[in-house]
Amino acid sequence: MPQDIRIEDIASYEGQEVTIKGWLSLKTGKGKLQFLRVRDGTGVVQAVLLRKDVSPEAFESARRLSLESSLIVTGIVRADERAPGTPGGYELSVTDLQVVHEAQEYPIAPKEHSVEFLMDNRHLWLRSSRQWAILRVRATVVRAIRHWLDGHGFLNVDTPILTPAACEGTSTLFETDYFGEPAYLTQSGQLYNEATIGAFGKVYCFGPTFRAEKSKTRRHLMEFWMVEPEMAFADLEECMRVQEEFVSYIVQTALRERAPELDILERDTAPLQRVQPPFPRISYDQAVEMLNRGGVAITWGEDFGSPHETYIAEQFDRPVFVHHYPSQCKAFYMEPEPGRPEVCRSVDLLAPEGYGEIIGGGERMSRLELLEEAIQRHNLPRQAYEWYLDLRRFGSVPHSGFGLGVERTVAWICGISHIRETIPFPRTLQRIYP
Amino acid sequence: MPQDIRIEDIASYEGQEVTIKGWLSLKTGKGKLQFLRVRDGTGVVQAVLLRKDVSPEAFESARRLSLESSLIVTGIVRADERAPGTPGGYELSVTDLQVVHEAQEYPIAPKEHSVEFLMDNRHLWLRSSRQWAILRVRATVVRAIRHWLDGHGFLNVDTPILTPAACEGTSTLFETDYFGEPAYLTQSGQLYNEATIGAFGKVYCFGPTFRAEKSKTRRHLMEFWMVEPEMAFADLEECMRVQEEFVSYIVQTALRERAPELDILERDTAPLQRVQPPFPRISYDQAVEMLNRGGVAITWGEDFGSPHETYIAEQFDRPVFVHHYPSQCKAFYMEPEPGRPEVCRSVDLLAPEGYGEIIGGGERMSRLELLEEAIQRHNLPRQAYEWYLDLRRFGSVPHSGFGLGVERTVAWICGISHIRETIPFPRTLQRIYP
Repeated sequence: MPQDIRIEDIASYEGQEVTIKGWLSLKTGKGKLQFLRVRDGTGVVQAVLLRKDVSPEAFESARRLSLESSLIVTGIVRADERAPGTPGGYELSVTDLQVVHEAQEYPIAPKEHSVEFLMDNRHLWLRSSRQWAILRVRATVVRAIRHWLDGHGFLNVDTPILTPAACEGTSTLFETDYFGEPAYLTQSGQLYNEATIGAFGKVYCFGPTFRAEKSKTRRHLMEFWMVEPEMAFADLEECMRVQEEFVSYIVQTALRERAPELDILERDTAPLQRVQPPFPRISYDQAVEMLNRGGVAITWGEDFGSPHETYIAEQFDRPVFVHHYPSQCKAFYMEPEPGRPEVCRSVDLLAPEGYGEIIGGGERMSRLELLEEAIQRHNLPRQAYEWYLDLRRFGSVPHSGFGLGVERTVAWICGISHIRETIPFPRTLQRIYP
Repeated sequence: MPQDIRIEDIASYEGQEVTIKGWLSLKTGKGKLQFLRVRDGTGVVQAVLLRKDVSPEAFESARRLSLESSLIVTGIVRADERAPGTPGGYELSVTDLQVVHEAQEYPIAPKEHSVEFLMDNRHLWLRSSRQWAILRVRATVVRAIRHWLDGHGFLNVDTPILTPAACEGTSTLFETDYFGEPAYLTQSGQLYNEATIGAFGKVYCFGPTFRAEKSKTRRHLMEFWMVEPEMAFADLEECMRVQEEFVSYIVQTALRERAPELDILERDTAPLQRVQPPFPRISYDQAVEMLNRGGVAITWGEDFGSPHETYIAEQFDRPVFVHHYPSQCKAFYMEPEPGRPEVCRSVDLLAPEGYGEIIGGGERMSRLELLEEAIQRHNLPRQAYEWYLDLRRFGSVPHSGFGLGVERTVAWICGISHIRETIPFPRTLQRIYP
């Protein structure tokens, strides 16, 4: 019996008879010849049916087959440089065809559809080559993230999704009833990471996070995935060093393993090739000066918006660190710079090509008194933070960490304009279906 | 300068002077000699201070140091078979000691504490050796899960946490307000997996899932992590074959990589060594007969409870598959057995040693008419399932999948009695703090 294979492995089977199970994505041909473009989830291959090579029933069912029907096709693998779809160029000379399920008329045609329509049919749209390519890149990004961290002494320690207290204010939180108490969907696992470094040294959490923000920008989702590494005995400098190694590894892995997908997306990979350590580092002070010199007005103390981030990033050929933001722009737990408390030991990493902030992080407060003051100054409920204060009572250490957003990273690597295509089932302001 | 090292790598540094950054977990000694048990998150090592080898200040601060203080200790690595803590037996002859932060009196003493007290102090309890060992095993289980799936052609495709419709009834769902619409926290990504196999062939989702069940058993959490693989063109038999390979790989990886941790947990690893494919397979019918013969009364058609699962599992020396449950016991989407619709092509995997069901899965309905009938029969809101029905309209294929609960798997591998210790911050009926 011919061997079942996956299309991405087809190059190893030249000249052999194999079986592929998949779906019909395109059909052309006439008379004695039918070309079926078959995809199996790992790739696409052209199957060629000659009337004389298959049974009359098989030829007839191929001729009538509707798009997106499921099928099992058997044939001989032939090298053909002109063959579309597969990398390297292979096609299948069909010897047998079995229709598994004849699809109804498929709603997504190779023409312009509205975003609304495509999103309503997201469960089917995922089969289109661009969406397929983006989510294959996403899977590689996720794997590269974990592989690098696992290989560099970070332990994956999951942090809770349901939390009793807010990390940064409650106005943008999704709330639920937890057996009579209010609970909130997490915006970050960081505070918990600061506890687990006390047990494991270097940790990361990696899971979904939530922000109930009434924003409709290209960069925001209500539900998104974030990886957050945290390190005991690490300062701001070490934090940046880890980030540049980490991000470079992710990008280079995607380039190496997902070249065909980036090709489908028509991604110019030259800017990605340049993503290698070290990354340039500038202070917030320097950034403000650079912006004002460049005619993008900003007053010291203001947070950056998209135009500022884009302008700064354009001045460099790879991602750029901006460190030492004004304390007022950042979360309460950021370590103030000794001798200059109006700025903190924070760092953001700005991606090139207008993709903006992909990492936020820095050094956290390690002194109990400073943190107590900060909690009071920000009017946070002290009781809810008692456990967090404990971390400064029992063997406090200098520590740093950061959060990298998966969807923004995937959008950047894929070179796509809207973040909604970087997650299988996006949750946006007006959408929670399918 | 001496090299910074991690305790788990200490064996490579015998005879060298190294620096370790960590916390004091135990202290003994008197007069001219102090023994400091130091942990750094990767392991524990004994640091030996002789008054004559260090500065008077360093010796004095060691003598006075409180438990869980953070410190940086430098010394020569010596092999010593009697040395406690490190595998193989190494200790550190201290040449210098620097106290980073002097801990307040540590609340967790090496004595009996109530579960309530320990859970209130979960952020500190994680530092204890048993908790540390369990969560190191957990991280390995998570990594083994992903490694096996990534290596066997499954693509990681994330499914949404916020969902508009229920997978299996709404009574056990956490609800939130999604900009004016109700939304629910997911109980399973499976329905979405059934969509993504149409694009990617073999997929898995892996994330937190939620069940608002008012239960207080040793086996339940409100928030738990589940991995759910799903495969196009796979039947019940293939589903079992994948499960036994997958589970065996996870268990054998934990045995190989976490021997010291399983030793701390005093786990008898003999039953785990036997977890190798093939696993025995029995039908529900056979299981019912076995139970009644064994004096554990059950009527055909009833679902199994803990005593039933435990009895069945005790009859075998490794995990056992129970397949073809009555359709009435399982979810609406299970494929009925052709010619015998009262049973379905479902399968549960029962772990040995009383750990019960760790996997539920099976073959899903692929025919549109059957699924429409099932949705009607279960009074599910048809509109919410339209996209799910689409999957049977456009190239439906036979497909199977399953869900493995991370916490139950970790509890089993670690041999611990309560699931609450298998997740860093457990969410139970009465607890959402810290």
